[in-house]
Amino acid sequence: MYKKILVAIDISAEGDQVLGAAQELVQMHRADATVIHVTDNPRTFYPSVYGEIAGYDFTFDEQTFRNSLLERLAKLSEPYGFDKDSVAVEFGGITEQVVAKAADINADLIVLGSHGRHGIQLLLGSTANGVLHHARCDVLAVRIKDT
Amino acid sequence: MYKKILVAIDISAEGDQVLGAAQELVQMHRADATVIHVTDNPRTFYPSVYGEIAGYDFTFDEQTFRNSLLERLAKLSEPYGFDKDSVAVEFGGITEQVVAKAADINADLIVLGSHGRHGIQLLLGSTANGVLHHARCDVLAVRIKDT
Repeated sequence: MYKKILVAIDISAEGDQVLGAAQELVQMHRADATVIHVTDNPRTFYPSVYGEIAGYDFTFDEQTFRNSLLERLAKLSEPYGFDKDSVAVEFGGITEQVVAKAADINADLIVLGSHGRHGIQLLLGSTANGVLHHARCDVLAVRIKDT
Repeated sequence: MYKKILVAIDISAEGDQVLGAAQELVQMHRADATVIHVTDNPRTFYPSVYGEIAGYDFTFDEQTFRNSLLERLAKLSEPYGFDKDSVAVEFGGITEQVVAKAADINADLIVLGSHGRHGIQLLLGSTANGVLHHARCDVLAVRIKDT
Protein backbone atom coordinates (compact mmCIF):
# COMPACT_ATOMS: atom_id res chain seq x y z
CA MET A 1 0.00 0.00 0.00
CA TYR A 2 2.75 2.47 0.93
CA LYS A 3 5.68 2.72 -1.48
CA LYS A 4 7.93 5.34 0.09
CA ILE A 5 8.08 5.82 3.85
CA LEU A 6 9.82 8.65 5.68
CA VAL A 7 10.76 7.72 9.26
CA ALA A 8 11.44 10.73 11.50
CA ILE A 9 13.29 9.93 14.72
CA ASP A 10 15.10 11.34 17.67
CA ILE A 11 18.54 9.94 18.29
CA SER A 12 17.47 8.35 21.57
CA ALA A 13 15.98 5.24 23.10
CA GLU A 14 12.65 6.46 21.77
CA GLY A 15 14.09 6.42 18.28
CA ASP A 16 14.45 2.66 18.73
CA GLN A 17 10.72 2.26 19.31
CA VAL A 18 9.85 4.18 16.17
CA LEU A 19 12.47 2.33 14.12
CA GLY A 20 11.13 -1.03 15.31
CA ALA A 21 7.59 -0.17 14.22
CA ALA A 22 8.84 1.32 10.96
CA GLN A 23 10.89 -1.77 10.13
CA GLU A 24 7.80 -3.98 10.28
CA LEU A 25 5.82 -1.58 8.12
CA VAL A 26 8.56 -1.23 5.53
CA GLN A 27 8.86 -5.01 5.21
CA MET A 28 5.10 -5.50 5.10
CA HIS A 29 4.59 -2.87 2.41
CA ARG A 30 7.86 -3.70 0.63
CA ALA A 31 8.45 0.04 0.67
CA ASP A 32 11.54 2.16 0.24
CA ALA A 33 12.42 4.13 3.34
CA THR A 34 14.42 7.12 4.44
CA VAL A 35 15.25 7.78 8.10
CA ILE A 36 15.56 11.44 9.00
CA HIS A 37 16.80 13.18 12.11
CA VAL A 38 16.24 16.93 12.41
CA THR A 39 18.10 19.17 14.79
CA ASP A 40 18.46 22.90 15.27
CA ASN A 41 20.89 24.55 12.94
CA PRO A 42 24.18 24.21 14.84
CA ARG A 43 25.13 27.78 13.94
CA THR A 44 22.35 28.98 16.24
CA PHE A 45 23.28 27.00 19.35
CA TYR A 46 26.89 26.00 18.93
CA PRO A 47 28.49 29.26 20.13
CA SER A 48 26.36 29.48 23.27
CA VAL A 49 26.80 25.82 24.16
CA TYR A 50 30.41 25.29 23.21
CA GLY A 51 31.70 28.84 22.99
CA GLU A 52 33.29 28.90 26.44
CA ILE A 53 35.11 25.67 25.76
CA ALA A 54 36.05 26.07 22.12
CA GLY A 55 36.35 29.84 22.12
CA TYR A 56 33.86 32.18 20.49
CA ASP A 57 36.08 32.60 17.48
CA PHE A 58 35.95 28.84 16.92
CA THR A 59 35.16 28.15 13.29
CA PHE A 60 32.30 25.72 13.34
CA ASP A 61 32.54 23.00 10.78
CA GLU A 62 28.97 22.20 9.82
CA GLN A 63 29.97 19.30 7.63
CA THR A 64 31.88 17.59 10.45
CA PHE A 65 28.92 18.04 12.78
CA ARG A 66 26.51 16.67 10.18
CA ASN A 67 28.78 13.70 9.49
CA SER A 68 29.01 12.81 13.16
CA LEU A 69 25.22 12.90 13.44
CA LEU A 70 24.86 10.84 10.25
CA GLU A 71 27.21 8.27 11.72
CA ARG A 72 25.20 8.02 14.94
CA LEU A 73 21.94 7.84 13.02
CA ALA A 74 23.26 5.12 10.73
CA LYS A 75 24.48 3.11 13.72
CA LEU A 76 21.08 3.42 15.41
CA SER A 77 19.14 2.55 12.25
CA GLU A 78 21.24 -0.30 10.91
CA PRO A 79 19.93 -3.01 13.29
CA TYR A 80 16.44 -2.26 11.94
CA GLY A 81 17.42 -2.87 8.34
CA PHE A 82 17.98 0.73 7.26
CA ASP A 83 21.39 1.05 5.63
CA LYS A 84 23.62 4.11 5.81
CA ASP A 85 22.54 5.36 2.39
CA SER A 86 18.96 5.70 3.61
CA VAL A 87 19.61 8.05 6.53
CA ALA A 88 19.52 11.84 6.44
CA VAL A 89 20.24 14.68 8.86
CA GLU A 90 18.65 18.10 8.37
CA PHE A 91 19.06 21.32 10.32
CA GLY A 92 16.09 23.56 11.13
CA GLY A 93 12.52 23.31 12.42
CA ILE A 94 11.33 19.74 12.77
CA THR A 95 7.93 20.18 11.15
CA GLU A 96 9.28 22.16 8.21
CA GLN A 97 12.20 19.82 7.58
CA VAL A 98 10.16 16.62 7.88
CA VAL A 99 7.41 17.94 5.61
CA ALA A 100 9.98 19.21 3.08
CA LYS A 101 11.85 15.91 3.04
CA ALA A 102 8.59 13.99 2.61
CA ALA A 103 7.75 16.12 -0.43
CA ASP A 104 11.31 15.80 -1.73
CA ILE A 105 11.35 12.00 -1.73
CA ASN A 106 7.67 11.78 -2.66
CA ALA A 107 6.78 9.91 0.54
CA ASP A 108 3.26 8.53 0.86
CA LEU A 109 3.65 7.89 4.60
CA ILE A 110 5.49 9.63 7.40
CA VAL A 111 6.17 7.58 10.56
CA LEU A 112 7.05 9.41 13.77
CA GLY A 113 6.83 9.06 17.52
CA SER A 114 4.07 10.51 19.64
CA HIS A 115 3.81 11.28 23.34
CA GLY A 116 1.02 11.96 25.78
CA ARG A 117 -0.07 15.30 27.07
CA HIS A 118 2.34 15.57 30.00
CA GLY A 119 5.16 18.02 30.60
CA ILE A 120 7.97 17.83 28.10
CA GLN A 121 6.00 15.21 26.22
CA LEU A 122 3.48 17.87 25.24
CA LEU A 123 6.24 19.73 23.48
CA LEU A 124 7.32 16.61 21.64
CA GLY A 125 3.71 15.81 20.81
CA SER A 126 3.43 19.14 19.06
CA THR A 127 5.84 17.87 16.42
CA ALA A 128 3.38 15.15 15.51
CA ASN A 129 0.63 17.78 15.38
CA GLY A 130 2.63 20.09 13.17
CA VAL A 131 3.55 17.35 10.73
CA LEU A 132 -0.03 16.10 10.75
CA HIS A 133 -1.28 19.53 9.73
CA HIS A 134 1.25 20.30 7.05
CA ALA A 135 2.11 16.99 5.43
CA ARG A 136 0.52 16.16 2.12
CA CYS A 137 0.55 12.42 2.85
CA ASP A 138 -0.60 9.97 5.51
CA VAL A 139 1.00 10.18 8.95
CA LEU A 140 1.43 7.31 11.41
CA ALA A 141 2.11 8.37 14.99
CA VAL A 142 3.75 5.52 16.90
CA ARG A 143 2.89 5.66 20.57
CA ILE A 144 6.09 5.96 22.57
CA LYS A 145 5.89 3.72 25.61
CA ASP A 146 7.16 5.21 28.84
CA THR A 147 10.36 3.51 29.88
CA MET B 1 1.63 -6.10 13.25
CA TYR B 2 -1.72 -4.60 14.26
CA LYS B 3 -4.32 -6.99 15.63
CA LYS B 4 -7.29 -4.77 16.38
CA ILE B 5 -7.98 -1.63 14.36
CA LEU B 6 -10.54 1.05 15.17
CA VAL B 7 -11.64 3.02 12.11
CA ALA B 8 -13.26 6.36 12.91
CA ILE B 9 -15.23 7.93 10.06
CA ASP B 10 -17.66 10.59 9.07
CA ILE B 11 -20.70 9.42 7.19
CA SER B 12 -19.66 11.25 4.05
CA ALA B 13 -17.68 10.93 0.85
CA GLU B 14 -14.59 11.42 3.00
CA GLY B 15 -15.56 8.38 5.01
CA ASP B 16 -15.08 6.39 1.81
CA GLN B 17 -11.45 7.48 1.56
CA VAL B 18 -10.71 6.42 5.12
CA LEU B 19 -12.57 3.12 4.70
CA GLY B 20 -10.62 2.36 1.54
CA ALA B 21 -7.28 2.87 3.27
CA ALA B 22 -8.47 0.96 6.34
CA GLN B 23 -9.61 -2.01 4.25
CA GLU B 24 -6.12 -2.46 2.82
CA LEU B 25 -4.53 -2.22 6.25
CA VAL B 26 -6.96 -4.66 7.84
CA GLN B 27 -6.32 -7.22 5.11
CA MET B 28 -2.55 -6.70 5.22
CA HIS B 29 -2.39 -7.09 9.00
CA ARG B 30 -5.14 -9.73 9.12
CA ALA B 31 -6.61 -7.60 11.89
CA ASP B 32 -10.04 -7.40 13.44
CA ALA B 33 -11.71 -4.06 12.89
CA THR B 34 -14.47 -1.90 14.28
CA VAL B 35 -15.85 1.09 12.37
CA ILE B 36 -17.12 3.89 14.58
CA HIS B 37 -19.09 7.03 13.81
CA VAL B 38 -19.47 9.61 16.56
CA THR B 39 -22.08 12.34 16.55
CA ASP B 40 -23.39 14.85 19.06
CA ASN B 41 -25.86 13.46 21.52
CA PRO B 42 -29.15 13.89 19.66
CA ARG B 43 -30.83 15.12 22.85
CA THR B 44 -28.73 18.27 22.63
CA PHE B 45 -29.52 19.23 19.05
CA TYR B 46 -32.71 17.43 18.13
CA PRO B 47 -35.18 19.87 19.72
CA SER B 48 -33.57 22.93 18.13
CA VAL B 49 -33.23 21.31 14.72
CA TYR B 50 -36.47 19.39 14.49
CA GLY B 51 -38.55 21.02 17.21
CA GLU B 52 -40.49 23.30 14.92
CA ILE B 53 -41.38 20.43 12.63
CA ALA B 54 -41.97 17.66 15.11
CA GLY B 55 -43.17 19.80 17.98
CA TYR B 56 -41.15 20.53 21.08
CA ASP B 57 -43.05 17.93 23.04
CA PHE B 58 -41.95 15.32 20.53
CA THR B 59 -40.57 12.35 22.39
CA PHE B 60 -37.21 11.67 20.87
CA ASP B 61 -36.46 8.03 20.39
CA GLU B 62 -32.71 7.72 20.78
CA GLN B 63 -32.71 4.06 19.80
CA THR B 64 -34.50 4.75 16.52
CA PHE B 65 -32.02 7.52 15.73
CA ARG B 66 -29.08 5.28 16.60
CA ASN B 67 -30.47 2.45 14.49
CA SER B 68 -30.91 4.70 11.46
CA LEU B 69 -27.29 5.86 11.79
CA LEU B 70 -26.09 2.29 12.26
CA GLU B 71 -27.93 1.32 9.10
CA ARG B 72 -26.30 4.12 7.10
CA LEU B 73 -22.88 3.32 8.54
CA ALA B 74 -23.25 -0.38 7.75
CA LYS B 75 -24.30 0.42 4.19
CA LEU B 76 -21.29 2.72 3.74
CA SER B 77 -18.84 0.24 5.29
CA GLU B 78 -20.04 -3.00 3.72
CA PRO B 79 -18.40 -2.48 0.28
CA TYR B 80 -15.06 -2.22 2.11
CA GLY B 81 -15.44 -5.58 3.79
CA PHE B 82 -16.71 -4.39 7.18
CA ASP B 83 -19.88 -6.27 8.07
CA LYS B 84 -22.78 -4.86 10.05
CA ASP B 85 -21.66 -6.47 13.29
CA SER B 86 -18.42 -4.48 13.19
CA VAL B 87 -19.94 -0.98 13.07
CA ALA B 88 -20.75 1.22 16.04
CA VAL B 89 -22.40 4.60 16.62
CA GLU B 90 -21.63 6.64 19.72
CA PHE B 91 -23.00 9.96 20.93
CA GLY B 92 -20.76 12.62 22.46
CA GLY B 93 -17.42 14.33 21.86
CA ILE B 94 -15.45 12.75 19.03
CA THR B 95 -12.07 12.57 20.79
CA GLU B 96 -13.52 11.17 24.01
CA GLN B 97 -15.71 8.60 22.28
CA VAL B 98 -13.02 7.41 19.87
CA VAL B 99 -10.41 7.11 22.62
CA ALA B 100 -12.90 5.31 24.90
CA LYS B 101 -13.92 2.86 22.18
CA ALA B 102 -10.27 2.16 21.36
CA ALA B 103 -9.62 1.30 25.00
CA ASP B 104 -12.84 -0.73 25.17
CA ILE B 105 -11.96 -3.00 22.25
CA ASN B 106 -8.25 -2.97 23.10
CA ALA B 107 -7.32 -1.43 19.75
CA ASP B 108 -3.64 -1.16 18.88
CA LEU B 109 -4.28 1.23 15.99
CA ILE B 110 -6.79 3.99 15.34
CA VAL B 111 -7.33 5.03 11.71
CA LEU B 112 -8.98 8.36 10.98
CA GLY B 113 -9.10 11.07 8.35
CA SER B 114 -7.03 14.22 8.46
CA HIS B 115 -7.35 17.57 6.73
CA GLY B 116 -5.05 20.49 6.03
CA ARG B 117 -4.91 23.73 7.90
CA HIS B 118 -7.58 25.58 5.95
CA GLY B 119 -10.96 26.86 7.08
CA ILE B 120 -13.38 24.19 8.19
CA GLN B 121 -10.64 21.63 7.63
CA LEU B 122 -8.73 23.05 10.58
CA LEU B 123 -11.66 22.20 12.81
CA LEU B 124 -11.78 18.67 11.48
CA GLY B 125 -8.02 18.37 11.79
CA SER B 126 -8.35 19.09 15.49
CA THR B 127 -10.09 15.74 15.91
CA ALA B 128 -6.96 13.99 14.71
CA ASN B 129 -4.91 16.11 17.13
CA GLY B 130 -7.16 15.32 20.06
CA VAL B 131 -7.12 11.61 19.39
CA LEU B 132 -3.37 11.72 18.84
CA HIS B 133 -2.88 13.28 22.26
CA HIS B 134 -5.20 11.08 24.24
CA ALA B 135 -5.05 7.66 22.61
CA ARG B 136 -2.95 5.00 24.26
CA CYS B 137 -2.17 3.34 20.92
CA ASP B 138 -0.78 4.19 17.49
CA VAL B 139 -2.77 6.58 15.30
CA LEU B 140 -2.78 6.64 11.50
CA ALA B 141 -4.10 9.86 9.96
CA VAL B 142 -5.21 9.23 6.39
CA ARG B 143 -4.84 12.32 4.28
CA ILE B 144 -8.23 13.28 2.88
CA LYS B 145 -7.87 14.32 -0.74
CA ASP B 146 -9.82 17.39 -1.78
CA THR B 147 -12.60 16.39 -4.12
